[in-house]
Amino acid sequence: MSTLYRGGSFTTWGDEPVTALVVQDGRVVHHGEAATDEVVELAGRAVVPGFVDSHTHLVFGGDRTEEFEARLSGSPYAAGGIRSTVAATRETDDDSLLRRALHLAAEARRSGTTTLETKSGYGLTVRDERRSLRVARLVTPHTTFLGAHVPDEPGYVDLVAGEMLEACAPLATAIDAFCETGAFDVDECRTVLLAGQAAGLDVHVHANQLGPGPGVQLAAELGALSADHCTHLSDGDVAALRDAEVVATLVPVAEFSTRSPYAPARRLLDAGVTVALATDCNPGTSFTTSMPFVIALACRELGMSPLEAVFAATAGGAAALGLEDVGHLNVGARADFVVLEAPSPTWLAYRPGVDLVHRVVKDGA
Amino acid sequence: MSTLYRGGSFTTWGDEPVTALVVQDGRVVHHGEAATDEVVELAGRAVVPGFVDSHTHLVFGGDRTEEFEARLSGSPYAAGGIRSTVAATRETDDDSLLRRALHLAAEARRSGTTTLETKSGYGLTVRDERRSLRVARLVTPHTTFLGAHVPDEPGYVDLVAGEMLEACAPLATAIDAFCETGAFDVDECRTVLLAGQAAGLDVHVHANQLGPGPGVQLAAELGALSADHCTHLSDGDVAALRDAEVVATLVPVAEFSTRSPYAPARRLLDAGVTVALATDCNPGTSFTTSMPFVIALACRELGMSPLEAVFAATAGGAAALGLEDVGHLNVGARADFVVLEAPSPTWLAYRPGVDLVHRVVKDGA
Repeated sequence: MSTLYRGGSFTTWGDEPVTALVVQDGRVVHHGEAATDEVVELAGRAVVPGFVDSHTHLVFGGDRTEEFEARLSGSPYAAGGIRSTVAATRETDDDSLLRRALHLAAEARRSGTTTLETKSGYGLTVRDERRSLRVARLVTPHTTFLGAHVPDEPGYVDLVAGEMLEACAPLATAIDAFCETGAFDVDECRTVLLAGQAAGLDVHVHANQLGPGPGVQLAAELGALSADHCTHLSDGDVAALRDAEVVATLVPVAEFSTRSPYAPARRLLDAGVTVALATDCNPGTSFTTSMPFVIALACRELGMSPLEAVFAATAGGAAALGLEDVGHLNVGARADFVVLEAPSPTWLAYRPGVDLVHRVVKDGA
Repeated sequence: MSTLYRGGSFTTWGDEPVTALVVQDGRVVHHGEAATDEVVELAGRAVVPGFVDSHTHLVFGGDRTEEFEARLSGSPYAAGGIRSTVAATRETDDDSLLRRALHLAAEARRSGTTTLETKSGYGLTVRDERRSLRVARLVTPHTTFLGAHVPDEPGYVDLVAGEMLEACAPLATAIDAFCETGAFDVDECRTVLLAGQAAGLDVHVHANQLGPGPGVQLAAELGALSADHCTHLSDGDVAALRDAEVVATLVPVAEFSTRSPYAPARRLLDAGVTVALATDCNPGTSFTTSMPFVIALACRELGMSPLEAVFAATAGGAAALGLEDVGHLNVGARADFVVLEAPSPTWLAYRPGVDLVHRVVKDGA
């Protein structure tokens, strides 16, 4: 079964303008017109690669509506708020965790996300981290072990880097640690991340979110795929990301929802760092699954152009996950794309808050 | 046919908590359980009054994607940008204008808007203003004549207040004027608005958007239903709105999309002014139909609590249109409401960018 998509405006990230796409067996197999089994007329609609949301926390119990309301009326965000989600997650059975995570993943898909990473990090015991990742694996193949999310009793780091990692590594593709005052210091993060790397996992670092710190430099030192948040960066941090080719994953809705300063996207882009945009979907600081909203906000608040933002939300996210066949629509790519009810991808920023998704195609279907 | 809605969390704006609603003949006829023909179980979902979007410009030709992109890269917003939409609107036939306006109105309905005002103002000739309002009347009963949108040749104000008003008044329920440096001065606006008032129309004023000015005071002087935008307000302006009971209609997405300062909602609310939130949907400065996005933005940027924002987006909008039977769900109200895929209306702010609309009920259906 082959399908020709034509009559639209295609953003592929390839060098040549594309007037039509041929999809077969879930892949883009040809650019341009061809004889196919089926033809889809796009009637002028824009096509962009499916969004790659490279940073989410979908496996959790409870919600934090009251904390959100309190913050709106003036209480600052504290990393400790995560603990309430940890308590709720431990009390929630696997089926309920899965139902919620699948609901959020389906919501993400409807808004154009075709590749999704998600993390553990609300279990923080061997048992609860392991079952969080079992749930995560039923949602997406891109799962990250985040045992080093919130500090616990003395010896916790050794537990994370030892028994917990051993139990979780088979269920994860990557490891992450929250390097921040109030979370884990740089030596603790290094211990955990090196152990994960030795177990064959890719590395991400929650870095420089709430203040300046060594997280970004650690990501560069370890050859991490991405440093995530990157709100407070020195010039040395920006240079380290560029030189080590670490993707800077920015999550502006967390900054929107916590009334925090926005990340310096312009400095990163101008320095040649690869930027990814992600939702950071979680119940505490960024309870959205909408990559279109992330794109609109990045244009308003991060100084990104619409095309820079769409690139970061697609190719940038793919780079952050180390994936080569998503985030673009060159020949050979997975046929993952979004048909927009819009003549141009700029409308994702020009029409904020509006559902512009006409159709989401994943693996050609 | 009577229907009982129960098992949800109801926001009615009445004094008593409500556990169930009975709807009959398009109205809320009873609060609480009763024997009905039909029962709808809401399974814990939140119900809010349908959104009342009291300020939109849906009748236009063309779009302004390029101007939007230019503004993102640094060009300031100039009221003159409206002229490009005027040129495009004059060149667009009635059917095309109607198709676009109905598309946007349907989009608004899907995001929970059950009452909508819309304006002329991109025609600016007797013929083009009149046909804009003919189109508008096919979209909504709440139509505003905005001939005084952009200045034209000498004598234009007399045309607007004379022949154009005469042609347009039968198609409109209200009149509006853009009182701003670069648009119309206070005497010109007074001339136009008094003529409209004499023709039986309600009064709105586009006031104090781009800088301080006399627009808000004029709205108070004329007993307008609303002063719209209200970005730059003196303490005297706030007092005038309160004392004259003029609704302040705030449109934060215009400020989001033009990177302008946000309106001082907190000062207005704390002074006891009734605030409405609206989309200002138009192709130049706020190309959104999403009241949920307006609410989320009002909580982030205007210092409003979620309930204040939802009140402003429902009861506030109704007050701005002089309507008593929408914007709330007390007995006697129109059965216009939104069932949210959320346990509380706070989620409209807590989950920005996410489509939380489970079902929209308009006139009981």
